[in-house]
Amino acid sequence: MEATRSYSLQELAEACGGEVVGDAHTRIQGVGTLEHAVPGELTFLTNSLYRDQLLGTRASAVILGPEDRNATTLPRIVSANPYACYARVAQRLFPLPEAVPGVHSSAVIDPSAQVSPAATIGPHATVGAGAVIGSGVVVGPGCVVGERVVLENDVRLYPRVVVYPDCRIGPRSILHAGVVIGADGFGMARDAEGWIKIPQVGRVIIGADVEIGANTTVDRGAIEDTVIEEGVKLDNQIQIAHNCRVGAHTVIAGCTGISGSTRIGRNCRIGGGVGMVGHLDICDGVTVSGFSLITKSITQPGVYTSSIPSQPHRQWMETLANLRALPQWTQKLKTLEQKLEKNTKEE
Amino acid sequence: MEATRSYSLQELAEACGGEVVGDAHTRIQGVGTLEHAVPGELTFLTNSLYRDQLLGTRASAVILGPEDRNATTLPRIVSANPYACYARVAQRLFPLPEAVPGVHSSAVIDPSAQVSPAATIGPHATVGAGAVIGSGVVVGPGCVVGERVVLENDVRLYPRVVVYPDCRIGPRSILHAGVVIGADGFGMARDAEGWIKIPQVGRVIIGADVEIGANTTVDRGAIEDTVIEEGVKLDNQIQIAHNCRVGAHTVIAGCTGISGSTRIGRNCRIGGGVGMVGHLDICDGVTVSGFSLITKSITQPGVYTSSIPSQPHRQWMETLANLRALPQWTQKLKTLEQKLEKNTKEE
Amino acid sequence: MEATRSYSLQELAEACGGEVVGDAHTRIQGVGTLEHAVPGELTFLTNSLYRDQLLGTRASAVILGPEDRNATTLPRIVSANPYACYARVAQRLFPLPEAVPGVHSSAVIDPSAQVSPAATIGPHATVGAGAVIGSGVVVGPGCVVGERVVLENDVRLYPRVVVYPDCRIGPRSILHAGVVIGADGFGMARDAEGWIKIPQVGRVIIGADVEIGANTTVDRGAIEDTVIEEGVKLDNQIQIAHNCRVGAHTVIAGCTGISGSTRIGRNCRIGGGVGMVGHLDICDGVTVSGFSLITKSITQPGVYTSSIPSQPHRQWMETLANLRALPQWTQKLKTLEQKLEKNTKEE
Repeated sequence: MEATRSYSLQELAEACGGEVVGDAHTRIQGVGTLEHAVPGELTFLTNSLYRDQLLGTRASAVILGPEDRNATTLPRIVSANPYACYARVAQRLFPLPEAVPGVHSSAVIDPSAQVSPAATIGPHATVGAGAVIGSGVVVGPGCVVGERVVLENDVRLYPRVVVYPDCRIGPRSILHAGVVIGADGFGMARDAEGWIKIPQVGRVIIGADVEIGANTTVDRGAIEDTVIEEGVKLDNQIQIAHNCRVGAHTVIAGCTGISGSTRIGRNCRIGGGVGMVGHLDICDGVTVSGFSLITKSITQPGVYTSSIPSQPHRQWMETLANLRALPQWTQKLKTLEQKLEKNTKEE
Repeated sequence: MEATRSYSLQELAEACGGEVVGDAHTRIQGVGTLEHAVPGELTFLTNSLYRDQLLGTRASAVILGPEDRNATTLPRIVSANPYACYARVAQRLFPLPEAVPGVHSSAVIDPSAQVSPAATIGPHATVGAGAVIGSGVVVGPGCVVGERVVLENDVRLYPRVVVYPDCRIGPRSILHAGVVIGADGFGMARDAEGWIKIPQVGRVIIGADVEIGANTTVDRGAIEDTVIEEGVKLDNQIQIAHNCRVGAHTVIAGCTGISGSTRIGRNCRIGGGVGMVGHLDICDGVTVSGFSLITKSITQPGVYTSSIPSQPHRQWMETLANLRALPQWTQKLKTLEQKLEKNTKEE
Repeated sequence: MEATRSYSLQELAEACGGEVVGDAHTRIQGVGTLEHAVPGELTFLTNSLYRDQLLGTRASAVILGPEDRNATTLPRIVSANPYACYARVAQRLFPLPEAVPGVHSSAVIDPSAQVSPAATIGPHATVGAGAVIGSGVVVGPGCVVGERVVLENDVRLYPRVVVYPDCRIGPRSILHAGVVIGADGFGMARDAEGWIKIPQVGRVIIGADVEIGANTTVDRGAIEDTVIEEGVKLDNQIQIAHNCRVGAHTVIAGCTGISGSTRIGRNCRIGGGVGMVGHLDICDGVTVSGFSLITKSITQPGVYTSSIPSQPHRQWMETLANLRALPQWTQKLKTLEQKLEKNTKEE
């Protein structure tokens, strides 16, 4: 993948504070994998297991850790954290396209909204009454920013994001296409006539440096707020129900659903396809394996799992039949124990 | 959370037919939880277990059940169903913002569409040929209402809802942002050349008082219609496949997927992250626990479950290894039984 | 369901190369199920088990296989593959509505985009700089086509589809409402300050004749491309992570999530609600049962499963308790074996 301009290896090393070994003037204009990089591209080695691939790479330079410092003769950047170094270097090579500040003529901005002159509002966007749009914000085409919403500086809304009224998005946060923030939580009371809607009068408050993937939904609180703290990263198609709190720097993979009023701690790592029931407290530093279900609060950091890897179908059917038959088998086992006990006594 | 105006406790009690005990003139301008309510706010107690919190609340009044009538000296509303009472009171305090009828100048309305003068069509909405939009309907910004769609009175479409052609939404139904109604069902036939698309010529018919959460999808029928009956409540990111029928007043929590041609009865409660295979009949009054899988029709009301709560990872790995080894263990158990049988005979 | 015009049975048989038995002039103006078809409609029998329903049908004609050739006296189309024949006949009866070429006045097209005069761009659509829109393409209302995107001939984007910059969609592919193609993959590196975003500089490349269901998301590659090969059919609300490759003619049902860098072969059939972890290789011809989890690469075609059907709740709780107790039971079984061994020796 080619960048719009080239940099010297020295310039790139400065992006991550790495040490250059070899020709610091090497020109780099793109990135590639060890296997497919072409001359002019930079690659990276984050795991010594792939040293063999390193030997065959056609890249012009490589980022690697101190333990692999001498594993190549290519010009290189040595960094204690080569993957983080790659992230910063790639950000230098591929900066987000500059948005030209201004409001597109087709956007509909309520006269009472405060839009920074340094913000960019795209075609067919709508900004409601009393909304506040900070400097450097980009509101993509077709976004709907509700009444009294606050988008702090440098927030980026990709196309077709909806932020319901009264929600607040912290600085530098990124929301991908199709995200819905602040829809009503799923709250209702039952009476003889059917279900009665409970007005959802809380908000969604999102901290700084949060990233939210495409088509993810975060519901507004029933009475108090739903809160996504700073540095949280949510993948695509995640559902966060009303009144949840997700702690700072926690990451959640795609297709996971968190039920209402559950609080997840800081620095957690939640896999994809996970479910959490409501009203739980998950402490800091918890890892949940993909496709697992959490039904109780967790007070100890560690890894929690209930996922079952598949087997060839016939084999799984046998496992399943045995699982279903367990109550009978444990009964038989008890009978055997008693028999043996009796036999032994009789002898 | 503060409402735009205050009400007397008496006025609010009338919203739910509750009995006022204490000062009926108490002014209420908001709602709060037992724990966080501030003076001027109303709170509620739906479970006597929280009586302790009731003692510490700073709320100005409380809704509670007859069994807790004397659990506080605060002004209060006594109701046989305090949660439903709270729902109605909160609706009084926080009515939906009034929409000003009219069509936004940026909306694109086909000349053959019939739009009630008492309907509101937001910016950048599109209404197709032959569509019928009833009185009190609100079509939010960026919605796309297809050809010949009928939105009955007081339907509310939040921003960016898409309703494909020929579908019908019943009165007072609410569709949240990103909902897609009437996309093609997943139907195709295989021949030597690959998959051949089967035209999906049915519709989606949605009854009265239905609510559908953000980014939920309901596919149109292959030949006949997909039907969501009155009073159904669907949470976010649910997928309802073609030809399904969801019975009146059934509620389904987030991230659940219902496969094609499955019929769910009335007054069911389906948890989040549930899967149902296709062509099933689920009778009225069934509850499915979150994260469970339904593979057969259900003819008896009751609770059905197959979800597995997580354990600490190492412990789960042991459970899993044992599960996989079950066929061997049951074999060993049989051998033991035979041995013991033989021993006993020999004696 | 009624079509806009009628056809003779002969004309319809030609759509699928079937043989007409009985009156070839029979007029057909719609399709119906065996059970609910009315006169003037065509129905089909794909499974001899439903022969009884065939006897009662009110349809004017029927499509069936050679083995059922004489199971009715109705005019009929006999086809070796009656379901594929039905698909082609229904396509004849219900062609997609013709789109009138041209750009709607409310659409915003960058002057550097190349839009075929035979393409249709709907209201409130946005087409970015350098995009290329082929002949016969339909871009629905509110779609956002990013910079340098290529939509090959006859692509159809339903309303509110977002295609991020640089992605490419093959000819005749259909993307349903709410689809997001090319959002950033979920890639970040950790350092002391938190998570650092890794720029996602690959693209999404979609082949010919692909169909993608409502609100499905396909992320762009981190460095190389995410690829969906020709003839793939994706249902609603699927998540395909960065760097995946889905092989030609593979079908995936709703709510399934595929983690990053996993490669799925050709002609696979992946059920709904399935999860796959990242970096796997799934060979051609694999079937995965709905609600199963794939954690390892698969090298043999066949069916793979790990889903657990639900039971009545109390019964399942007993199964679950037994599952949890397995380590103890296997221990007890070992003890018994040893005891019995000892007893036997002592005798």
